[in-house]
Amino acid sequence: MIRHIAALAISALLLTGPAQAAGTSLATGGLGLVIERASGSVLVVDRLAHDTLARIEGLGDLSHASVNYSPDERFAYVFGRDGGLTRIDMLARRIDRRVIQGGNSIGGAISDDGALIAVSNYEPGGVRIFDAETLALVADIPADGKTVGLVELPGRRFAWAVWDSGEAWMADLSGPQTVVTRLGETGANPYDAVLSGDGRHFVVGLFGEKGLTLFDMWDDAPAPVRFMADYGKDDEDLPVYKMPHLQGWAFTEGQFALPAVGRHEILWVDRTSLAEVARTSLHGQPIFILSQPGSPFVWVNFATPHNDALQVVDSRSHEVVATLRPGPAVLHMEFSPRGHEVWVSSRDDNKVIVFDTRTRAVKAEIAAQSPSGIFFTARAHRIGL
Amino acid sequence: MIRHIAALAISALLLTGPAQAAGTSLATGGLGLVIERASGSVLVVDRLAHDTLARIEGLGDLSHASVNYSPDERFAYVFGRDGGLTRIDMLARRIDRRVIQGGNSIGGAISDDGALIAVSNYEPGGVRIFDAETLALVADIPADGKTVGLVELPGRRFAWAVWDSGEAWMADLSGPQTVVTRLGETGANPYDAVLSGDGRHFVVGLFGEKGLTLFDMWDDAPAPVRFMADYGKDDEDLPVYKMPHLQGWAFTEGQFALPAVGRHEILWVDRTSLAEVARTSLHGQPIFILSQPGSPFVWVNFATPHNDALQVVDSRSHEVVATLRPGPAVLHMEFSPRGHEVWVSSRDDNKVIVFDTRTRAVKAEIAAQSPSGIFFTARAHRIGL
Repeated sequence: MIRHIAALAISALLLTGPAQAAGTSLATGGLGLVIERASGSVLVVDRLAHDTLARIEGLGDLSHASVNYSPDERFAYVFGRDGGLTRIDMLARRIDRRVIQGGNSIGGAISDDGALIAVSNYEPGGVRIFDAETLALVADIPADGKTVGLVELPGRRFAWAVWDSGEAWMADLSGPQTVVTRLGETGANPYDAVLSGDGRHFVVGLFGEKGLTLFDMWDDAPAPVRFMADYGKDDEDLPVYKMPHLQGWAFTEGQFALPAVGRHEILWVDRTSLAEVARTSLHGQPIFILSQPGSPFVWVNFATPHNDALQVVDSRSHEVVATLRPGPAVLHMEFSPRGHEVWVSSRDDNKVIVFDTRTRAVKAEIAAQSPSGIFFTARAHRIGL
Repeated sequence: MIRHIAALAISALLLTGPAQAAGTSLATGGLGLVIERASGSVLVVDRLAHDTLARIEGLGDLSHASVNYSPDERFAYVFGRDGGLTRIDMLARRIDRRVIQGGNSIGGAISDDGALIAVSNYEPGGVRIFDAETLALVADIPADGKTVGLVELPGRRFAWAVWDSGEAWMADLSGPQTVVTRLGETGANPYDAVLSGDGRHFVVGLFGEKGLTLFDMWDDAPAPVRFMADYGKDDEDLPVYKMPHLQGWAFTEGQFALPAVGRHEILWVDRTSLAEVARTSLHGQPIFILSQPGSPFVWVNFATPHNDALQVVDSRSHEVVATLRPGPAVLHMEFSPRGHEVWVSSRDDNKVIVFDTRTRAVKAEIAAQSPSGIFFTARAHRIGL
C-alpha cells in the first residue's frame, strides 16, 4: 500500500536554490531563553536546532526570573528578582533596554495587544505598568503590601493579589484613564495565582489559611468563590520545602491538577463542581505540574530532596506512567508548543536536557550555567502565562 | 490611588538607542498571509502594524486554499486547489519552492516536529507526504477514493477520511517505516473532519447520511463513536448553499458548537455526553464558527445570500450578542492569537477589515483582491488546524 520514494518523482518546479542553513535564519518562532540564575545571564537558544546562539550577560539577580515576549516574538521582557526589567532583542541577541523599576519584583505580564508591560513588586508593594517599546512608566498602582500572582487579562487588563491585605485587584487600561477595581477578598496571605488558558479562571493560592479562591473573569463583576476547603499547608504534614508554583497548575480534561502543599500528591479537582475527584501519589512534593500539549499527560517536578526526578501522570487514570531521572536539581520544564519535546533544566549538572515526549528518551543536551527557567517565544501567543 | 506618569521618572538605564521602526523587523511572530483567490496571489501582512508588506504571485488556483507554517514561522506552505504545494519564505517575501504534487488537492497538514508536509488529494485520491525542507516525496499513500479532513496528530502522525469508502485512516511516520492503520467506518461519504485543540477528538462530518463520527485519538486503538443521529442534510429543510467547514467548529466551555447543515442554527453539543444541549437561531446558514480566544464568545459567518453579516454568540447563554455587517461576501475570519482583534475578509469589497473584539468596532482596513482565507504565523504553534 505504501510506496517509499527516495527522490522527487513528480512534477516539480524549483524556483530557487536551497534554503539558508539552520542558525542563520532570522525567523523568531523557534527561539527561546534559558535563565542562568547564578550568573545573571541568559542563553538564546534555537529549540529546533537544539543549539545555543548566544549568551547575554548583565541581567542582575535572576534567582526568581520570568519572561514574556512581544507579539512579534522579537523582544523578550525578563523580570528579575532585583526589580530589573530587561528588554532583550532576540534578533540582535543583546540587551535592548534595561530599567531598575523597583526594589524587589516577582514577576510580570504583557497586555494582549503587546503595548504594556506590568510588573509586580514586593518593595514597595504595587504594580507598575510600562510602555513596552520605551519602558517609560505609564501607570503606578500602589498596594497595601506585596503584590503576587500578576496575570494579564484580555482587553488591556491585569489582575493580581495582595499578600498583606488578602485582596484581589484588577486594572483596566483600555480607555484613556487607568481604572482599578477591587475584586474582593481572597483569604489570608495569597502567595501566588494563575489564569486558565481560556482567560476565564483566576485562581489564588493561600499561605495564611486553607482553601483556594477562584474568580470567573468572564463575569462582568467577578466575585470570589472559595473551594477545596482543606487545601494548603498543614503543620502535621511533611515540612514544606517550597511552596508549589501556581503557574504550574495543569488545566486538562475538565480538571485542575493541583500540587498538594507539603505532601507527595497531585489533587485532581473537577473544574465545574470544584470538588476533588482523585489523588495521585508521587515521588516527592510537586512544584510544577504541566500539561503536555496534545496529550492526556502531565509532567511533574519536585522540591528538594527529591528534585532529581520527573514523573509523568495520565490525567484520565490519574496514574503515574513514567518516572525519569534527568539529573540533580530539576528546576523547570518547557514544552515545544505542539508538545513533541520537553526541555528540562538540571541546575546542578549545568545542562538542559531535551526529551522526546513520545519515547521519553533524551534527544539532546545543551550546556548552561545553573539553568532554571526555560521560555520559548511561542509563549507570545498564549493566554495565562 | 493612580498616578499617571508622563515620562520615565524612575531609575532607568537605557543601554541602546530606540528600537528599529515597525516594518523593518525580521521577527516573524506578527506576520500572516491573505489569500487572493481570484488572482492566484497572496499578501504578506504585518498584523501588528495593520499593513501589507508584499504581494506574491504565481500560486495557481487558490479558490480553496489553506496554509500551514513551519515551527520557526519562517515558511508558509500553501495548498492550492490545483494540487500546487507552494513554500513561501516569509522573510524574503517570495516563493521558495513550488511543486504540482497532485491533480486536485483540498488541504494539507504539517507534522508536530515540522519535518513533514502531508497533502490530501481528490484526483487521484490519497495522501502524499513530503519533506518540509526540500518538498521531495517521502511517502505516497493511495486511497479508495477522495481523501478529506486531513489533520496532523502528535508524534509525526496524520489522520484523514475517504469520501468513497466511508473510512478513517491514520499514518504514523515516527519510525523507519510508514505505518498505515485503518481506524474504522465513518458512515457514508465523509466530507470533512476536524481535530480538537488538545489533539484528542477527531470528528468526521457526513454528507451521505445523518450523524457525526468521533474518534478518541488518545486511545491506543481509536474506534468510531456515532453521535447526533439527526445531524446533517435534510431534504425538507432549506436548500444547502454550502456545506459548513468543520475546521470552523468551536470547542469551548466543554461544548462543540456545530453549524447546522442547511438551517439557520448553531447546535451546542456537550463534549462529554455527546448530546445536544442547546440551539441558537442565526441570521443565515453558518459556515465558520470560531472561538474568540480568552472569551466566552464565538463568531459566525454565513453562506450566501446572508454572507454580508457576522454574528457573535455567547457560549454560556447561547444567545446572539451582536450582529455586524462588514460587507459583501464575508468568507473568512482570523483572530489574533490572544484574541484582541479579528481580521475579516470581505471578498466583494476587496478588503480585509480588522475589528477590535472588545468594542467590536473597525480598527483598520487593508486592500486585497477578492480576499478569502487569512492565516497568521501563530498557527505554527497550535494543534488542530
